[in-house]
Amino acid sequence: MQYLPTDPVRLSDRGDSIIIIDQRLLPNDLVTREIKSAEDMYEAIKTLAVRGAPCIGVFAGYCVYVRSLYTSDDKLDDELVGFCDYLNSSRPTAVNLSWALGQMKDVLSQSKGQPADKRRELLNGKARQIHQSDIDTCQKIAEYGLTLIKEGDGVITHCNAGALATSRLGTGLGALLLAAQRGIKLRPYVDETRPLLQGARLTAFELEQAGLEPTLICDNMAAFVMSKGLVNAVFIGADRIAANGDTANKIGSLSLAINAEHFGVPFYVFAPTSTVDKSCKSGDNIEIEMREGDEIKSLYFEKPTAPEGVKCLNPAFDVVDNSLITAIITEEGIFTPPYNFG
Amino acid sequence: MQYLPTDPVRLSDRGDSIIIIDQRLLPNDLVTREIKSAEDMYEAIKTLAVRGAPCIGVFAGYCVYVRSLYTSDDKLDDELVGFCDYLNSSRPTAVNLSWALGQMKDVLSQSKGQPADKRRELLNGKARQIHQSDIDTCQKIAEYGLTLIKEGDGVITHCNAGALATSRLGTGLGALLLAAQRGIKLRPYVDETRPLLQGARLTAFELEQAGLEPTLICDNMAAFVMSKGLVNAVFIGADRIAANGDTANKIGSLSLAINAEHFGVPFYVFAPTSTVDKSCKSGDNIEIEMREGDEIKSLYFEKPTAPEGVKCLNPAFDVVDNSLITAIITEEGIFTPPYNFG
Repeated sequence: MQYLPTDPVRLSDRGDSIIIIDQRLLPNDLVTREIKSAEDMYEAIKTLAVRGAPCIGVFAGYCVYVRSLYTSDDKLDDELVGFCDYLNSSRPTAVNLSWALGQMKDVLSQSKGQPADKRRELLNGKARQIHQSDIDTCQKIAEYGLTLIKEGDGVITHCNAGALATSRLGTGLGALLLAAQRGIKLRPYVDETRPLLQGARLTAFELEQAGLEPTLICDNMAAFVMSKGLVNAVFIGADRIAANGDTANKIGSLSLAINAEHFGVPFYVFAPTSTVDKSCKSGDNIEIEMREGDEIKSLYFEKPTAPEGVKCLNPAFDVVDNSLITAIITEEGIFTPPYNFG
Repeated sequence: MQYLPTDPVRLSDRGDSIIIIDQRLLPNDLVTREIKSAEDMYEAIKTLAVRGAPCIGVFAGYCVYVRSLYTSDDKLDDELVGFCDYLNSSRPTAVNLSWALGQMKDVLSQSKGQPADKRRELLNGKARQIHQSDIDTCQKIAEYGLTLIKEGDGVITHCNAGALATSRLGTGLGALLLAAQRGIKLRPYVDETRPLLQGARLTAFELEQAGLEPTLICDNMAAFVMSKGLVNAVFIGADRIAANGDTANKIGSLSLAINAEHFGVPFYVFAPTSTVDKSCKSGDNIEIEMREGDEIKSLYFEKPTAPEGVKCLNPAFDVVDNSLITAIITEEGIFTPPYNFG
């Protein structure tokens, strides 16, 4: 079952370019774009036209394959590896980007000596495999997630960890979308997720499409909703999970986790194992992307919200300490503390 | 010292109307409006053209006086008391509105039998007294607040409890503005305060005017800033304080208090004693104003942020439990737990 008219990322029918949903324009406009140049690929990730940790991974796989079509046979190694490094620098926090690029680089190094077209075919196969594997993974994660809630539960989500961020069911939203498929009634609360409003623009859109009747709140209202006993669980995705379970996710996740602990609401993290960075001992080692202040003051607004000279601090992510996480759910099961993914 | 070209609320020079700064248009436009009809007065509070608990109290005093000028001598009692009830229904949570209206009604009942013009004069005197008293109160609160911080401290604020919300120095911002006057360097962090953005639009504007170089953040970034050790204290205002210290303030205050407790950051509430509602035993008895969802989805934005059908929950305030409050500062001093304002 599919909640969107098209996957957020896919190969074009001709197979020589990538078709993406431009997620910056949702929910007002559902626009697809065709991408083939290295610069457009970098820009798509940087500006969040393509976003969501697993989705960025899927996109990166296709990017390397498509670029191979425009790279001469004798430059497949140097140029494509250079392209991988370039694309990897577009956003630092989500590990799935470097994970997928690593997979594609492995194909390149393992296929050295083979005919160029055979190598391109192998890259194509790997990219499709990353995509299909993400679809399967999301399904498994959703099934596990569904065991954590029951009919009538209130579930609060942050940012977007649904079909737009992944493939099909999503991670953090997977259980909710699966519940909708199976006629299980839930009460989803959606943080709007400042500054880029992925909750309002994307999650509310997806849940609405799935018939789930979400309730939209501002991020700062989550504590109010919890204090009124309206929430039974928090479901979020992840951009990078350290070996000890510390989890980097969209800015605001930390506040939500602290509030959940205060009110005794379980806090669940959903992600494919490709989001686990075994080389990263703890959250202290996760680089947090800092973005432009104009995203806070100007983007989306009719007029600037603050005087021109005012400086902003705009971290794109924060790190939820493992002590605040009730369980981490991957395609391999439901993991509870102490976490040891090393 | 004054941080604004004019008080947010004052009698016109002719004395028969009220001049307000329309706070909905800041920081892009500093527009004053002249108000004299009962409907415009109600609307100004309801739509937050006039806002901030103490400022609403000052405004209410002048409103009753100005309405007395347009009320015939024999109807001063019935009509004006009716007007007080009408104005009091504009916003339910801030206690200063009903407190100030109570003061004005007391003048009316105590002056029964006196000549109508004498009674109007007494109303004028009481309104001016409420205003002057708020100015003095803010000065005292600011002096107390300044003893709680030291040069170089990071202070996070939420919503607007400054000159626009009160008279001159403000409550929650008073110590910061006083610090600026005295050349004490601080590092203020300003929550933008969704959905009405009073932090970005008003507090950042005021602090910038005072030369304090604020850093604007989204509400969901406060935990990040605290986790990095950048904040030494939280300073907020209050809309109603129960006898046991439970404090209703702008939505998001509760989340901020829970985060502050988690990171060991002291959480201070600043308010005049007129904000204490002795008749209110605890926060459970405070009515929370629920506002329209369009404030979340449409207001200020170029395009709606969520699909049209999505419903919103939009509480204007939340209640901070007294256990989360390090101290409550009024013009009478610094109060620490256990609070007993009964």
